[in-house]
Amino acid sequence: MVKQERALRTRRTVLEAAAHVIGHRGYQAATMAEIIQRAGVTKGAVYFHFTSKDALARAVITEQAEPFLPQVSASRLQDAIDFTHQVSLALRSDPMLQAGTRIAVETTFSEEPLMPYQVWTDIITTMFGEARDNGELLPGVTPERAAEFFVAAYMGVQLFSRAATNRADLPERVTALWKHTLPGLAAPGALSHLDPRGRRTQIRI
Amino acid sequence: MVKQERALRTRRTVLEAAAHVIGHRGYQAATMAEIIQRAGVTKGAVYFHFTSKDALARAVITEQAEPFLPQVSASRLQDAIDFTHQVSLALRSDPMLQAGTRIAVETTFSEEPLMPYQVWTDIITTMFGEARDNGELLPGVTPERAAEFFVAAYMGVQLFSRAATNRADLPERVTALWKHTLPGLAAPGALSHLDPRGRRTQIRI
Repeated sequence: MVKQERALRTRRTVLEAAAHVIGHRGYQAATMAEIIQRAGVTKGAVYFHFTSKDALARAVITEQAEPFLPQVSASRLQDAIDFTHQVSLALRSDPMLQAGTRIAVETTFSEEPLMPYQVWTDIITTMFGEARDNGELLPGVTPERAAEFFVAAYMGVQLFSRAATNRADLPERVTALWKHTLPGLAAPGALSHLDPRGRRTQIRI
Repeated sequence: MVKQERALRTRRTVLEAAAHVIGHRGYQAATMAEIIQRAGVTKGAVYFHFTSKDALARAVITEQAEPFLPQVSASRLQDAIDFTHQVSLALRSDPMLQAGTRIAVETTFSEEPLMPYQVWTDIITTMFGEARDNGELLPGVTPERAAEFFVAAYMGVQLFSRAATNRADLPERVTALWKHTLPGLAAPGALSHLDPRGRRTQIRI
């Protein structure tokens, strides 16, 4: 049991080191040697958990969203708005999210893209689906298709913000993203109650 | 005069070689040596026109949009829809556009991003501005802000399509982008006349 805890802690240390190196250097430029050095553990310990840089990247992609727990309120559409603002704020400093973005853009053009979009699309699809069940969506809006569109658009918006202002204007750009997309998503009755700026600063779990 | 024509032709040859190499290898991985080899001109001729890979990238960014002439009809919003479909179709085979995308994503994380978004934002801003003057936009929509949002979202959508299907589903994704954003852009009277799929296949100039 103690041994298992230690193994989990080592795994986490390695993952965080990988996120740091990938976030700073880029996915292609990052090397296992540098990740091992930063983690401060033995090479054997790293390879016990992750057999390759690709395996590390897949773990970053899968686990980057885990600390973010969307809150559940009467408006699932407002919950989705708040959630994207929460992730945007974290993106400025969270190495796992920053690494996820770099893996996304760098593997887009490779033979086997890693599709880090999926984990976010799944979360937003669930929220849009519950919003539809609550009568918050316009008729004709399909939660999964809308989520795919939204996640793709969000990726573009955050890249634009990174290039333009090193993410300083990301909150305003995420607000603009919602302002431009809510009229095509939300039923008129829901629209007037939604705040595209997000309800308040969220607490990260 | 003849000499000048030859110089322009050489410049174009070098630019196309650069686009090909950058589009296939990526911007960071592309080398001047490979670009010179592909262009089939002397090293001196290349450096006469472009002093560095950075200068070549800037020329690709500035000139990638030039062959695309938005048509001018009674609906500037429909013209914008058609224009984005035209560019999307070309993106599947046009080396300059493909290189522009790779330069955009690869320099996003560098110290001095090249902001290839600007050339597209300028074109869409103009069309949205004329759409506003025609009464096609919702009150409160600012052409420049809306264009910035749209170009960022478009960038995300085309990256998503590249990763998911090597751009096979790009036309459907661009249609979905318009379907989701038109209700937040177009005045109700204009909205019912717009076709998010584009009016017809455009002729490339």
